[in-house]
Amino acid sequence: MRKVVVLSGGIGPRWGRWEKLTGREGAALAAKEAIERAGIEPRQIQAIFVGNALAEAEKQGHIGPIIATELGIPEVPTMRIETACASGSSAFREAFVNVAAGIYDVVLVVGVEKVTHIDVITATTYFAYGMDQVYEARNGASFPGVYAAMAVAHMNKYGTTEEQMALVSVKNHTNALHNPKAHFHKKITVEDVLKSRVIAWPLKLYDCSPFSDGAAAVIVTTEEFARKYTDNLVYVIGSGRAGVQMALPERDDLTSIKATTLAAREAYRMAGIEPKDVDFAEVHDCFTIAEIIATEDLGFFKKGEGGKAVEEGLTQIDGKIAINPSGGLKAKGHPVGATGVGQVVEVWEQFNGLAGKRTVPGAEIALTHNVGATGGTVNVHIFRRG
Amino acid sequence: MRKVVVLSGGIGPRWGRWEKLTGREGAALAAKEAIERAGIEPRQIQAIFVGNALAEAEKQGHIGPIIATELGIPEVPTMRIETACASGSSAFREAFVNVAAGIYDVVLVVGVEKVTHIDVITATTYFAYGMDQVYEARNGASFPGVYAAMAVAHMNKYGTTEEQMALVSVKNHTNALHNPKAHFHKKITVEDVLKSRVIAWPLKLYDCSPFSDGAAAVIVTTEEFARKYTDNLVYVIGSGRAGVQMALPERDDLTSIKATTLAAREAYRMAGIEPKDVDFAEVHDCFTIAEIIATEDLGFFKKGEGGKAVEEGLTQIDGKIAINPSGGLKAKGHPVGATGVGQVVEVWEQFNGLAGKRTVPGAEIALTHNVGATGGTVNVHIFRRG
Repeated sequence: MRKVVVLSGGIGPRWGRWEKLTGREGAALAAKEAIERAGIEPRQIQAIFVGNALAEAEKQGHIGPIIATELGIPEVPTMRIETACASGSSAFREAFVNVAAGIYDVVLVVGVEKVTHIDVITATTYFAYGMDQVYEARNGASFPGVYAAMAVAHMNKYGTTEEQMALVSVKNHTNALHNPKAHFHKKITVEDVLKSRVIAWPLKLYDCSPFSDGAAAVIVTTEEFARKYTDNLVYVIGSGRAGVQMALPERDDLTSIKATTLAAREAYRMAGIEPKDVDFAEVHDCFTIAEIIATEDLGFFKKGEGGKAVEEGLTQIDGKIAINPSGGLKAKGHPVGATGVGQVVEVWEQFNGLAGKRTVPGAEIALTHNVGATGGTVNVHIFRRG
Repeated sequence: MRKVVVLSGGIGPRWGRWEKLTGREGAALAAKEAIERAGIEPRQIQAIFVGNALAEAEKQGHIGPIIATELGIPEVPTMRIETACASGSSAFREAFVNVAAGIYDVVLVVGVEKVTHIDVITATTYFAYGMDQVYEARNGASFPGVYAAMAVAHMNKYGTTEEQMALVSVKNHTNALHNPKAHFHKKITVEDVLKSRVIAWPLKLYDCSPFSDGAAAVIVTTEEFARKYTDNLVYVIGSGRAGVQMALPERDDLTSIKATTLAAREAYRMAGIEPKDVDFAEVHDCFTIAEIIATEDLGFFKKGEGGKAVEEGLTQIDGKIAINPSGGLKAKGHPVGATGVGQVVEVWEQFNGLAGKRTVPGAEIALTHNVGATGGTVNVHIFRRG
């Protein structure tokens, strides 16, 4: 197994509502930014892995060859990977494996989603393809609903409060103010969150991540190749994956996502580190409760203390462990297939002095955590500044 | 890189029109058959890669965790891979890479599609998501149309005839008579093909592969692990991938799929063999012309002589090189995401004395060729009887 490095990353067009760009165009722009930032030529790319979840939205599956063609390298093999909201990190995982194994030396990972041009009901329906259609969606469940059930369980068992969840949203909106590519640049208060309309109690509008259009791209390569282009290496030192029963009714415990615990354990073991060694983490806050649960399952706080940790400011950029300095899914945005790749871009930017006022001071080790549905797929990756 | 072995394969329920089975059920049955034939327990499986193209048909994306749950191993990480009609072989590829790299020792690959419950127009629309929506589908192109364009080009340049194409169909229907899991068990004549209704000239109904429901599964593992369960090893000795401009209008030549040539070259090089060493091949005959083009691009016949080769019987089971002994997409059926995995199952059955009257006598080396759309993705794999 060879050491694997993230050579560069790019977001391309700002996440949010793309009025004029199609998915393929946005994807190509993000890819070109990553290629330029790496200082390489497209023809040096040997394979492309694409994270893309909602092909229905643009009636375009099999998007890999289209992106390759837009980059002028149509003969490069591509692969679209779909694991619902974890599609981007699953694509990154296969890039990691292929480079580590010596199959390829230079791989492009692209994540992309274009969804705001369709109406919200249709978009919600398409999103729900990522959950269990038979046992969940067909019975009326949507993602806000199932995460609301998890929130209620967490409140009942641990006393987590609506205010604590609101504070996740406030923090992530604050961080996003300093992220020029974030969907939202809007400072909000706890009051704003609590007074926003109820989507699925206890989750209010401002507890929910948005539908975003967006893309993200990274170049994954070997240590040897990367050294020719930069002295500032970002190593991938851990990678873990796991699943859990897709349908919520089949699970024993709604206050934890077991797949996160398992994937994290594997990633920590590979990296040879412990949760306390992580300086910042981009976690999957599709809903505010999801961030609280994630910070517990990843081992940053004891089970049940994630809400209190937010309240005490421990997850702020200058706190014990910065959570979602980018603004997270909540405020940076959630272009499904791009989300997991965007997390890696954030790590690369943080470690390359490009994060501006959202920089986590002195950070050396970072973790990304990306969840498909309510945990059917969880990918955890760990990075070290070289 | 470790040596990689296909330990077992299974089709599960016969391909065709599933009246009562859902995709998830069919996928689980195929997986269980592969697991039983391997003689292993589900808990020994460390990862699952799923080829599945048309999530829309059952409104179920992210199908990996559902299959894992059906097998009683919900915590095993899964990944759905979509590269249109090449989804199954792309999933197989990642299993190969992960085992070769030492990431996993035992991997399950499942391909599945359930599509016959929706009407043909809708199914055709969903299929067309696999081509270029902007430059092809939106302008009225469908798969029969673009392959018809390739057929016309091949006829014009090389004198390939409608009768030669019909003979591909006749051969594959004949082979499928001996495949109990094939969609069609129907002997046909050249006259039947020529007189069947025109779909997109020169392609008639019997030049076209069907919409099939179906699944397929294989267990991919190391030589060391496999030896504990069998003496009859099926090695994966070559793997190649490539793409080409997705939209037909962007290409220089319609008589060849360049991605096939490139993927084959890579696979032959890895395997250390030449086309003449291949004893039989399962190739992507989504339309009869596609088989003729494939046998040329794979190097079995000189360019332009694929039609003549069929006419001379060279591609029959007892010919120079048996092409599609299983019956191929044309007659075995084409359950999109399952097709590429089903090709590997055929190789495994051939090499394990389970192919009955369709057995290719004395075969030692086999090749599989799976195409996404008109070549946006092509995967070629080569196998050797151990």
